Amino acid sequence: MTLLLPDLELVKTITKPSPDKIVLLIIDGLGGLPHPQTGKTELETADTPNLDQLAAEAICGVIDPVSPGITPGSVPGHLALFGYDPFSCSIGRGVPEAVGVDFPLESGDVAARGNFCTVDETGLVTDRRAGRISTEKCTELCHLLDGLVIENVEIFVSLVKEHRFIAVFRGEGLEPDITDSDPQQVGVAPKPITALNPQAGKTANIATQFIAQAKATLAGHHPANMVLLRGFSQRPQFPTVGEIYKLKPAAIASYPMYRGLAKLVGMEVLETGNSIEDEMATLKQNYADYDFFFLHIKGTDSAGEDGDFDRKVKIIEQVDRALPSLIDIKPDVLVVTGDHSTPALLRGHSWHPVPILLRSKWCRPDKVCQFSESACSSGGLGRFPAIHIMLLAMANALKLTKFGA
Amino acid sequence: MTLLLPDLELVKTITKPSPDKIVLLIIDGLGGLPHPQTGKTELETADTPNLDQLAAEAICGVIDPVSPGITPGSVPGHLALFGYDPFSCSIGRGVPEAVGVDFPLESGDVAARGNFCTVDETGLVTDRRAGRISTEKCTELCHLLDGLVIENVEIFVSLVKEHRFIAVFRGEGLEPDITDSDPQQVGVAPKPITALNPQAGKTANIATQFIAQAKATLAGHHPANMVLLRGFSQRPQFPTVGEIYKLKPAAIASYPMYRGLAKLVGMEVLETGNSIEDEMATLKQNYADYDFFFLHIKGTDSAGEDGDFDRKVKIIEQVDRALPSLIDIKPDVLVVTGDHSTPALLRGHSWHPVPILLRSKWCRPDKVCQFSESACSSGGLGRFPAIHIMLLAMANALKLTKFGA
Repeated sequence: MTLLLPDLELVKTITKPSPDKIVLLIIDGLGGLPHPQTGKTELETADTPNLDQLAAEAICGVIDPVSPGITPGSVPGHLALFGYDPFSCSIGRGVPEAVGVDFPLESGDVAARGNFCTVDETGLVTDRRAGRISTEKCTELCHLLDGLVIENVEIFVSLVKEHRFIAVFRGEGLEPDITDSDPQQVGVAPKPITALNPQAGKTANIATQFIAQAKATLAGHHPANMVLLRGFSQRPQFPTVGEIYKLKPAAIASYPMYRGLAKLVGMEVLETGNSIEDEMATLKQNYADYDFFFLHIKGTDSAGEDGDFDRKVKIIEQVDRALPSLIDIKPDVLVVTGDHSTPALLRGHSWHPVPILLRSKWCRPDKVCQFSESACSSGGLGRFPAIHIMLLAMANALKLTKFGA
Repeated sequence: MTLLLPDLELVKTITKPSPDKIVLLIIDGLGGLPHPQTGKTELETADTPNLDQLAAEAICGVIDPVSPGITPGSVPGHLALFGYDPFSCSIGRGVPEAVGVDFPLESGDVAARGNFCTVDETGLVTDRRAGRISTEKCTELCHLLDGLVIENVEIFVSLVKEHRFIAVFRGEGLEPDITDSDPQQVGVAPKPITALNPQAGKTANIATQFIAQAKATLAGHHPANMVLLRGFSQRPQFPTVGEIYKLKPAAIASYPMYRGLAKLVGMEVLETGNSIEDEMATLKQNYADYDFFFLHIKGTDSAGEDGDFDRKVKIIEQVDRALPSLIDIKPDVLVVTGDHSTPALLRGHSWHPVPILLRSKWCRPDKVCQFSESACSSGGLGRFPAIHIMLLAMANALKLTKFGA
């Protein structure tokens, strides 16, 4: 793997438009670990004739999402896929969640991702998702909390989906560097929010008061009798994908966070449905109007997080069955990979490398003819950090000029 | 240009304790070059059923100790293994040698590694090691030189082993940026010591006077009739392995320099004997009390430096035969590799990648079933810089939290 990276300002000087179109298909949490009984990962277990055919025509490899050993969250995982250094371009979860549900985030606003959760009579969290309450119930609870004003700071609470919401704090002098209240486990109390620097003291104080008021308001709404907040953040200032790569980019994602993240890097987010087939249809309908498509599949990651090996296998097979409609479009450059591994055995994101295939007229195919962790690890792309994917895709689309004399 | 590595401050934010234990077995100078008559390296020639079995159960690869093409000294080679950037965390040889023999090094002291050597009547070096004089003789000569005072600078001279000693300069305004007197070859005169910056002028001057006095004192002690100094350095300020990784680390090494290096990065250095079996026994006796073990085998490097292919093969076989006592302990994460290659054919350290195996419950094994340069180069870990090893080991021990939202 290489450690040399051009910075984005340099990249801008070598990108150029071309007629070629790029499709980046991200199967979230794609990589896995072998099932103890079969020795095969989720991807190796799944029947995937279309992915295998693509692998045979492509050059393959494995990516380290961020850096070897690091388990990335969804935000750094995707920032690296779009070519941003995930160490210097970090953003908290709140902002992409808020942008993803079209909240009109203003400069200076501090956004947090929220969960309605269940606490017992001693205040310990017994369910971080309040039994995954319905979206209707969540809407009702958001209304109860929305519009509070604490010390001249307005607090907006908006629905995301099921138990998920966003809280946006708007007022003078707010700083996002405060800790989460979400303990990320059950059996313990929500964590106190503390300021990570002196400037953020006011925000920490107001967030703490908000949580106390929310607890009082929700007292009679068991199982959704408490809130957990995490990922306090402000809108970052990144150069957009359009500016860096001279692309007209579109995003197809059903889950709000990924829609938000795509907007934050300057992609147009297309309306689509909830199924893989809906997303493929959206690609087909809009193919003429953009030259870069980020297509995001969420179900694989959710199944992995639930520890459901068989469901993850089935979703990979669904993706495979939906692929012909994408292949028929004949994208000039097609990249298929994931933002990180989510092995069902670990019930969460992990550090393991993720298989990747890149098919184009100019890809110099290798001998790999199966899309799997083990087969791709001997592919022609070798093992490399995900941050290089965008320039590889751009090169294969003949969208990069020569660097240097 | 960006180096895609988390800095140590960031690493601190994602490390957490876990019950799992990590053993890092370093076979010094492990990598080699093929024997012209057999086409096999030292490791490929050795009969290593236990290492091969481990390779079969592990994920394998090859590491670049520092960076492709770079031949590292022992210090940068080991700093990279412990996760420190060897370009920014450089330290000269003097400090770890001094700390390794338990010299009470104070802040501001400048330490150098010394050799007693032989010079002829014209002053040319004829043997850099004075015929490897005995440790007893070295003790006697160190006493002759110890305790000199030159311009209010005290000079301490202490035994290391055989022809090796340390010289420590203590006084006001000493700076370590001066050149070595050791020419690293015979047939030439010792090199004059010069200051690499104006602040170091005083140190260069005093070191030069010390060498002149030593030469006068040693005149009648042929073959040990001169000294060579190198690696002038001061104690560095690194965050410790305990601080960065939240580990309780122990080091098992018989050679003083490696004990010193381990102390400098905050490991507890365990008493052990000189044989591989002694080191393995020390691991077993102390296994309950620490959660990270650095176990260092020196013989392979020495044999390579002596150009003794067959002895290096034998020492690798000794390591293999001693392995069952390590394997019986069932370390949760076991990493076996070297700090660099020392091919007998080159009679010295080299830049060639070094095989690595990592075995854990979560390692995602590959198809490699032989621990060798050629077999590991097609392993699932691919080829990567050694600096990533610590985070990979930490990840496999479930000692890293998710990075980012």
